[in-house]
Parts: sequence; C-alpha cells; structure tokens
Amino acid sequence: MALELYLDLYSQPCRSVYIFAKKNNIPFDLRRLSLLDGEQYGEEFGKINMIRKAPALRDGDFCLAESIAILLYLAEKFQTPDFWYPADLQQRARVNEYLSWQHMAIRMHGSKMFWLRLLIPKVLGVEVPQDKLDAALEDLNGSLKLIEEKFLQDRPFIAGDHISLADLVAIVEVMQPVGSGLDVFEGDPS
Amino acid sequence: MALELYLDLYSQPCRSVYIFAKKNNIPFDLRRLSLLDGEQYGEEFGKINMIRKAPALRDGDFCLAESIAILLYLAEKFQTPDFWYPADLQQRARVNEYLSWQHMAIRMHGSKMFWLRLLIPKVLGVEVPQDKLDAALEDLNGSLKLIEEKFLQDRPFIAGDHISLADLVAIVEVMQPVGSGLDVFEGDPS
Repeated sequence: MALELYLDLYSQPCRSVYIFAKKNNIPFDLRRLSLLDGEQYGEEFGKINMIRKAPALRDGDFCLAESIAILLYLAEKFQTPDFWYPADLQQRARVNEYLSWQHMAIRMHGSKMFWLRLLIPKVLGVEVPQDKLDAALEDLNGSLKLIEEKFLQDRPFIAGDHISLADLVAIVEVMQPVGSGLDVFEGDPS
Repeated sequence: MALELYLDLYSQPCRSVYIFAKKNNIPFDLRRLSLLDGEQYGEEFGKINMIRKAPALRDGDFCLAESIAILLYLAEKFQTPDFWYPADLQQRARVNEYLSWQHMAIRMHGSKMFWLRLLIPKVLGVEVPQDKLDAALEDLNGSLKLIEEKFLQDRPFIAGDHISLADLVAIVEVMQPVGSGLDVFEGDPS
C-alpha cells in the first residue's frame, strides 16, 4: 500500500509537504481533509493523529504528525537530493535553525494575519479592530525582517546557494498573508 | 578556542543544551547571559544571535541560534551516543515529531504559566486575574495530556526504550511550571 498523506491544501504546512512530495516524485495517496469543516476531529483521523492537526502521514502501521517531521522522514526514506537537507554540518544546522525558529515567528504571525484579515471578517463576519491588525502587522514585519537580515543575509537561499527544506517551509508561510491581500513584499527592493 | 555556549540557566531551552553538553562531556566555555536583565539586547550578543534569544552557540566563526538546532549540531559534531538522536528512520521521526510539536504546545503553555504564576505577580507586582490563570492551566493540561497519551503512550521514553533529545527537551519544559509552585503531576498515577 502506498504511503498516505492527509492534507488540507489551504494549510501552509500541508502545502510544504505536498510540494516536496510532488517535486521529488514520491508516490503517495492523497487523503484530503477539510480543517475548516472540522474533519480533523473525526474518529478516523483521531487514529492517524491524536494532535488533530494536518498534515499527517501513514506509512503502513506507522503514523506521523508535524510537517517538519514528515518532511525529514520523506527526505530520508526516499533519499531526496542532498540540498533539501544538506549532510554538511553547518549547512544542516542553518536549516535546523530556521525550521526551529519559524514555529513561533513567521508561522504564528503569518497565520494570525490570514485569520484577522480574511477568515474572521469574511467567514465569521466579525470586524477586527484596527489596533489588533496593527499589532499583528508589527509582529509579522519583525519576522519578515529576520528572514531577510538573519536567515538570508546576502545568500540566495537560507543554507547558501541552493534551496533547502528551510526555504520551502519559509515560502509557504510568507505567502499565506499574501492570500489575505497583504503585500508582504511592499517597499522591499530585493 | 573552545566552543562557546551563551546560556541563561533560568531558561528551559538553555538548560536542555547545558545538560546535554555536560552529560556528553562536550567541552565548552560557558558565557552567562541574564535574560531578565536584558543582556540579550546588548551589542556584543547581537553579533552572536540577531534573534536575541538564548541559547546561542559560537564555534569559531560559526554562530548558531535555537536550542533544537544547537542540540542537533552538538550531537552530530561530537558523535554522541545514537539513542540521543536515533539513526533508525521511525525512531528519529518520533524525536523530530516531538521536537517540532513542542514549540507551540508545552513550551508556550508551560512558559506562560511560569510568567502568570511567578514572574508577573512576584517580579512586576501585578496580580493576574483568575480567568487568565484558568485558561492557561487548561492549555497546559492539554499539552501534558498529549505528552502522555500521544508521545509516551505505554513507552518509557518518547522514541521507545531509551532517552532521546525529545525527552530532554520535554522534561525542562514540564518542570518550568513546577518552578512556579504548580504540581503538574498532581493526580497522575504514572
């Protein structure tokens, strides 16, 4: 039986897993899940991932949650090209540093912006006060600044000259607030 | 020159790095940093870690932030025993799954409890409303429940029969609210 990936492509971490699997020709069965419809709380999905978040992976009897763990599992199991998760000690450390940092930074702040600007007003019909939007934008801009000044610096990619898992995880998160109509690249010449 | 670790031992991630380095006889120079005194905002530390958080590592010209990345760097560079970060595909995935999950779960909720119960009332002298404490306790208990039911299940350690980086990172976070006088093990027979 092929490996199964439980994904909702509206979710950033699901998209990073989907793009990675597709790009590396990893065979998988797509199990679609709608987070907005609450399908992660269903009985069947609870057996796959007790955390009740997407993405989730099932490979035979082995179930795995957390997009970063899934990406690393796929990279190792399917021996994807080295640049995705470089064997070089320092380059790998750069990738791990970003993958660890992003959870409570761009992932949190970009998601929040998407909720405040899109889901809460358009789906729930509730207007978000301007001061909350302003504070969220300040947090988001802080994260974007660190991606540029700390993680990229003068390099084309986070680990150096080639794309890695860090860049893939970065781009799906950076693009999420863009989906709410916010130009995160505004005024940025790079 | 020996590797340098910039640590504040009041910080959970700093303690995991410190314990790991000591336990594995990794030689390092301890550079003490007081986060409460704001030393992470100093000019010198900014050159080590632009994110301005501890822990941070300097190994020659190479600077690294984020405790998880530092632990993985030390494990690889000093070839620590396999059980810390098992080479086995599924065991490693279990460790990665926990290390990824914990950021926005026990790490966030345990830290918040420490602030609400100890630092805010005792250091800042501000009383925290009971409903905020109750909500924070509910979040913390949700994380503790997942550690038991999802990550440990009936195993002695997260990856199986032996301690790994996941357990080390778990225990420093689980113990943080205990430092504020909260018995996180109350009513737990295990």
